[in-house]
Amino acid sequence: MQLGRIVGTVVATRRDPATHAWSLRMVETLNVYNQPDGSYVVAVDVVGAGVGEVVMITRGSAARQTDLTASRPCDAVIMGIVDTWEVDDQTQYVK
Amino acid sequence: MQLGRIVGTVVATRRDPATHAWSLRMVETLNVYNQPDGSYVVAVDVVGAGVGEVVMITRGSAARQTDLTASRPCDAVIMGIVDTWEVDDQTQYVK
Amino acid sequence: MQLGRIVGTVVATRRDPATHAWSLRMVETLNVYNQPDGSYVVAVDVVGAGVGEVVMITRGSAARQTDLTASRPCDAVIMGIVDTWEVDDQTQYVK
Amino acid sequence: MQLGRIVGTVVATRRDPATHAWSLRMVETLNVYNQPDGSYVVAVDVVGAGVGEVVMITRGSAARQTDLTASRPCDAVIMGIVDTWEVDDQTQYVK
Amino acid sequence: MQLGRIVGTVVATRRDPATHAWSLRMVETLNVYNQPDGSYVVAVDVVGAGVGEVVMITRGSAARQTDLTASRPCDAVIMGIVDTWEVDDQTQYVK
Repeated sequence: MQLGRIVGTVVATRRDPATHAWSLRMVETLNVYNQPDGSYVVAVDVVGAGVGEVVMITRGSAARQTDLTASRPCDAVIMGIVDTWEVDDQTQYVK
Repeated sequence: MQLGRIVGTVVATRRDPATHAWSLRMVETLNVYNQPDGSYVVAVDVVGAGVGEVVMITRGSAARQTDLTASRPCDAVIMGIVDTWEVDDQTQYVK
Repeated sequence: MQLGRIVGTVVATRRDPATHAWSLRMVETLNVYNQPDGSYVVAVDVVGAGVGEVVMITRGSAARQTDLTASRPCDAVIMGIVDTWEVDDQTQYVK
Repeated sequence: MQLGRIVGTVVATRRDPATHAWSLRMVETLNVYNQPDGSYVVAVDVVGAGVGEVVMITRGSAARQTDLTASRPCDAVIMGIVDTWEVDDQTQYVK
Repeated sequence: MQLGRIVGTVVATRRDPATHAWSLRMVETLNVYNQPDGSYVVAVDVVGAGVGEVVMITRGSAARQTDLTASRPCDAVIMGIVDTWEVDDQTQYVK
């Protein structure tokens, strides 16, 4: 999994009908020190996360292992909202 | 998922017979600020998108989760046409 | 899918028996302007392409969606021979 | 598989219910000479590894081939604790 | 598939029990000109290759399409020993 921050939303009304229930979030991925790493992913939110929150992202076929995404063309989900993480005994982020 | 702009088409008459119904689009991938990121993908269009449109791409096994691509050698589909997206309350793109 | 040019062949007589029917091609991947991008992949040819031809490559689990590669340890196939492609109304390649 | 060092933990109380039994580890990936390569992954621990240990990571759909991760949105697992490895007859790491 | 040279072995006695029959090889990946590309992968040997040999690697879900790796957390296998390859009519490697 990767860490990321939700920085916005994506609107795409004309899309595969099987995906109409999805909330699409723009997620900027983060390095271990809570800094943007210059990349992003558009992910389906399955936990009710909002803009600004730090989240955990799962990619690939694993992104279809949720009720909302099963058997649908999804390659990235937000599957957790991060409370905190630490690296070498230093807290890098607290919600 | 990733964002991209359709910049052209690919013609390949001699190809795996199971793929003959596909429209192949050349898609330049975009960063969150709507700039090309220097990469591309040839994707199957399942939503009727045209050259110049900004679209959403799904990759990997998820790309086979549509009627047109199921059980076929497809690793990228255009599964939505983007209307707009925003980053940090700034609109980055409007159709 | 990605574009590439077949630049050579790979011989590996001692390999997984399930793969003995494969023709292994060395494929240099191309950018949208028909220039090598510095990367390559060894791919299984399922369309009868020859050295020098520009082809379309499928990767990942999608590479096993052909008769020759199903249920075998294959992560890349040549699934089409490219006739032409264009970017922004400019032809980048013609066979 | 890749080598990595567990540098910390991630806490995310609000997450996909199917994942509540997981221990989430922050793993810094290593090059062959036992140096951090600048990347990381959040992985599920299935072998009882602790912070500071050098481990082996499996990614992608393979990460769901354990009891703890099967049919769950997991794209990375810690599936082994490394004792030692060598490169060109030089030991690079000993536990 | 990718080309690589086996440069060493990895020992990890405490690991997922389903993987105990595996021989774990450290493989340095090669570019088309038989030079190390700066990356590596720990792969399961299914063909009996030794240190120093040049091999072919399959990654992703395809790495589970062998008897030794099926339904196990494996994302890379050595599935062939390379005899020779050529690029633009120049032999790059001979065993």
